[in-house]
Amino acid sequence: MAGITLRPMRADDVEEIVRISKATGFFNPQEVEVAGELALEAAEKGDASGYHFRVAIRSQQVAGYVCFGPTPLTKGTWDLYWIAVDPQQQRLGIGNRLMSLAEEEIRLQQGRLVLVETSSRALYEPTREFYKRLGYQEVSYIPDFYDKGDGRVTFAKVLPQGGANKMRP
Amino acid sequence: MAGITLRPMRADDVEEIVRISKATGFFNPQEVEVAGELALEAAEKGDASGYHFRVAIRSQQVAGYVCFGPTPLTKGTWDLYWIAVDPQQQRLGIGNRLMSLAEEEIRLQQGRLVLVETSSRALYEPTREFYKRLGYQEVSYIPDFYDKGDGRVTFAKVLPQGGANKMRP
Repeated sequence: MAGITLRPMRADDVEEIVRISKATGFFNPQEVEVAGELALEAAEKGDASGYHFRVAIRSQQVAGYVCFGPTPLTKGTWDLYWIAVDPQQQRLGIGNRLMSLAEEEIRLQQGRLVLVETSSRALYEPTREFYKRLGYQEVSYIPDFYDKGDGRVTFAKVLPQGGANKMRP
Repeated sequence: MAGITLRPMRADDVEEIVRISKATGFFNPQEVEVAGELALEAAEKGDASGYHFRVAIRSQQVAGYVCFGPTPLTKGTWDLYWIAVDPQQQRLGIGNRLMSLAEEEIRLQQGRLVLVETSSRALYEPTREFYKRLGYQEVSYIPDFYDKGDGRVTFAKVLPQGGANKMRP
């Protein structure tokens, strides 16, 4: 995985974040719009916005991003809101690197539990497999949540507590 | 239930909404704060804020309130965010009236599914029983969600489709 670096989002990444969200084919137009709005907000206010955006850079280009944040009104639970990798840059382990970074940052902030929500539709089977491979377990399924025939699956991972920062992204 | 009327929230109800939230003993300080902030936002922007606040009035006083809104990025799913009745005014059916109003308004806006989240702690047993009596079914339980030992229980109700507005709050 040489040549891939991870860093916090900057204001000039917003366009690339929108481009990648669209390019994956996993975001509907409204979701692309929301991802762009949140990225803009995070570019302005940083992590204080509640949306921690981190990007993966390869060949001086944004190759993927992850967005996570503390779940409001909880102590120690975090939401993994979005993760996307440029279709031209997939199968290089960029998604794994972004997830590891997110989990490590969450753990350093005393996060205990990470939740990810995704669709039950067949299109998202690879997404669900991706989370399962990373140790996430299905904890909830609500049929027809997003729309008729489009349920919500929630995955959770309990993070190991304490200790030093063993993984260095 | 004579003498109880329901109406949309007005700006001068915000203080009462905060007072009732505190008085119930079911909101922690952060939750009281958030309820107040959302009520303020709704007083400014109305339902366009995403938070539909409705109040129950008895003897010219706010006796309870409900807050609900469309779940972002879904088609037809709504969240029932908060419901609270003044402890001095409980057992008069005010909670039922507020829930019926919320469900009816949701249905008129083409809502199909209503979700309510609450704590798994023993304190909230009456809350969970209240939702069950109204036809809500437990669809998800995530241990340690709010805090260690404080899980999240999600209840759902599929609303009857179409037809005229049969219930008049």
